[in-house]
Amino acid sequence: MNASAAIISIPPAHRPSEILANSREIVDPGLRIAVDLLPEPLRQMAGYHLGWLDVRGEPARMSAGKLVRPALAICACTACGGAADSAAPAAVAAELIHNFTLIHDDVMDGDTTRRGRPTVWSVWGVSDAVLLGDALHAVAAEVLASRLPATVVGPAVDRLESTVIELCRGQHEDCSIAQEREPAIGECERIAMGKTGALMGCCCALGALCAGADEPAVAAMDRFGRELGMAFQLVDDLIGIWGDPNVSGKPAGDLARRTYTVPVVAALRSGTAAAVELKQLYSQPHSLSAAQIARAAELIESAGGRSWTRQEAERRMKSALDCLPAQLASADLRVLARLVAHRNL
Amino acid sequence: MNASAAIISIPPAHRPSEILANSREIVDPGLRIAVDLLPEPLRQMAGYHLGWLDVRGEPARMSAGKLVRPALAICACTACGGAADSAAPAAVAAELIHNFTLIHDDVMDGDTTRRGRPTVWSVWGVSDAVLLGDALHAVAAEVLASRLPATVVGPAVDRLESTVIELCRGQHEDCSIAQEREPAIGECERIAMGKTGALMGCCCALGALCAGADEPAVAAMDRFGRELGMAFQLVDDLIGIWGDPNVSGKPAGDLARRTYTVPVVAALRSGTAAAVELKQLYSQPHSLSAAQIARAAELIESAGGRSWTRQEAERRMKSALDCLPAQLASADLRVLARLVAHRNL
Repeated sequence: MNASAAIISIPPAHRPSEILANSREIVDPGLRIAVDLLPEPLRQMAGYHLGWLDVRGEPARMSAGKLVRPALAICACTACGGAADSAAPAAVAAELIHNFTLIHDDVMDGDTTRRGRPTVWSVWGVSDAVLLGDALHAVAAEVLASRLPATVVGPAVDRLESTVIELCRGQHEDCSIAQEREPAIGECERIAMGKTGALMGCCCALGALCAGADEPAVAAMDRFGRELGMAFQLVDDLIGIWGDPNVSGKPAGDLARRTYTVPVVAALRSGTAAAVELKQLYSQPHSLSAAQIARAAELIESAGGRSWTRQEAERRMKSALDCLPAQLASADLRVLARLVAHRNL
Repeated sequence: MNASAAIISIPPAHRPSEILANSREIVDPGLRIAVDLLPEPLRQMAGYHLGWLDVRGEPARMSAGKLVRPALAICACTACGGAADSAAPAAVAAELIHNFTLIHDDVMDGDTTRRGRPTVWSVWGVSDAVLLGDALHAVAAEVLASRLPATVVGPAVDRLESTVIELCRGQHEDCSIAQEREPAIGECERIAMGKTGALMGCCCALGALCAGADEPAVAAMDRFGRELGMAFQLVDDLIGIWGDPNVSGKPAGDLARRTYTVPVVAALRSGTAAAVELKQLYSQPHSLSAAQIARAAELIESAGGRSWTRQEAERRMKSALDCLPAQLASADLRVLARLVAHRNL
């Protein structure tokens, strides 16, 4: 059986909104049960961060994001022949780890806004934000330990925690570069793999483990998720410059802070006159003004940084699909891959 | 068979120094392998924190503490009939969790000295200290996940992570009280249980799990470790006032910072003239001078705070031993319990 015959035999794809809604239905109850394991006031702070509560602890209906990572875990599980429900602990754990790292990253980066609201540390202080991140990390591992079959717990926790170590490495390199100098594209990619690729790879690998998949299938899912995570991060970099803050929920502050994201680095390395002017803007010792931000965005575009990044995101998305053997390349995973590479653009 | 007959049948106790040296021999290699899982520069920072390296990354021979927690895990395992070596992953994980929380606590408390050297955050900054703590937390869970038998991984990771959540709760309450007002003794004890008792209980429970003990034995070991942890914390409070900083490695700063530790609270609640004068000293808005610290220590002693705390530590140590059914009260565990309750006094 060749690859195209295998693809024809799999069921028709769901629409992107259906895939995300189905995942949310599976992951939301588990996420709430997990957060209920926290003592107050950490529970309330977690509810705020996740968009369930406002700052006074009253119910809120904020966007908690698309839950792309849980969707990846669930679709990877079904692609490997498992029931969607059996990936619920993996999906919950991955989302908790994602949020633990967001809360700590906001402390380190000094970011005051996330999903259109004040960050946890800017409401409750640095100590509480550190403790909340620590507790969500603990709950994530606890969910895997207490809810997965005994044969799967060891490999699953091992993968999750190796991923956390990789996330710490990525965040450390990101902080170092932010303080220092213009990085090479390769460095940006290494950081993106550490900060985003590793966790998306982990989501897919955990989903496969929950389906009882063998090691080659788990490894293929990990590679797929990592490449897709690279596409995701590249699109995130584009949104950081050209995204609508009202849609993305994050201020378009990458240029104001003179962050070396991929579109910027690609533009700086283009050898064009625009690159020279952009380099001058980035060399000044203070934040960019609104007029300078607009000019920097124009320069990045005319130096080819925007189109290069978009093409690279597309290439990574296709490379992700190429990582999957035909029998694992389910229609839903393909839809999800395209959603990741094309969101908000 | 009655309890005393059971005690007679167990092997003679080792000396405290032998127990700690044996534990160190078992835990040290595993701890080094675990830390080697970290990427640089986190590995070097961990080596510094653990006393293996100096601040430039050169080998150092600093005290890494007595490794009381690993010793508890190992002695609990042998008391339950397991081989000492089989508790190595639990001992390593417990010590890593202990150090992760120390590194984060130092950030939150703004402490600049630990074990006689600058704390991680005061050398490398808050961001690196947060990341190092996160990574050590991850390595701890990974050690359990990758090195314990499959049947034990789930319950072990579950216990370890529930403990982390309890530690977060304890640290949160400790931070809140430090900022606010004089707590009741009961509040101090609740915090001590969260900050110290929970992890020592976890060490003993994990040791029992590694021996394949049944749930009642694991639960008894948890209770034993928790009571012993209370004794440990009470002794720590005494060292924080009357300890020799050259021996303990920590500055005797509890009084300078006007911290409400148990001896202070016990003295304040004594209804004596000394309590009134102590309350006045603690009510001033700034740190205490050297002369005021000496006076405060005298007042705490004459108000009975020192002797009450010492008796309470003794009571908790005996209560710990009472938690153990006769067949689990091994000679080594008894020696270790006395060591914890009498160290540096």
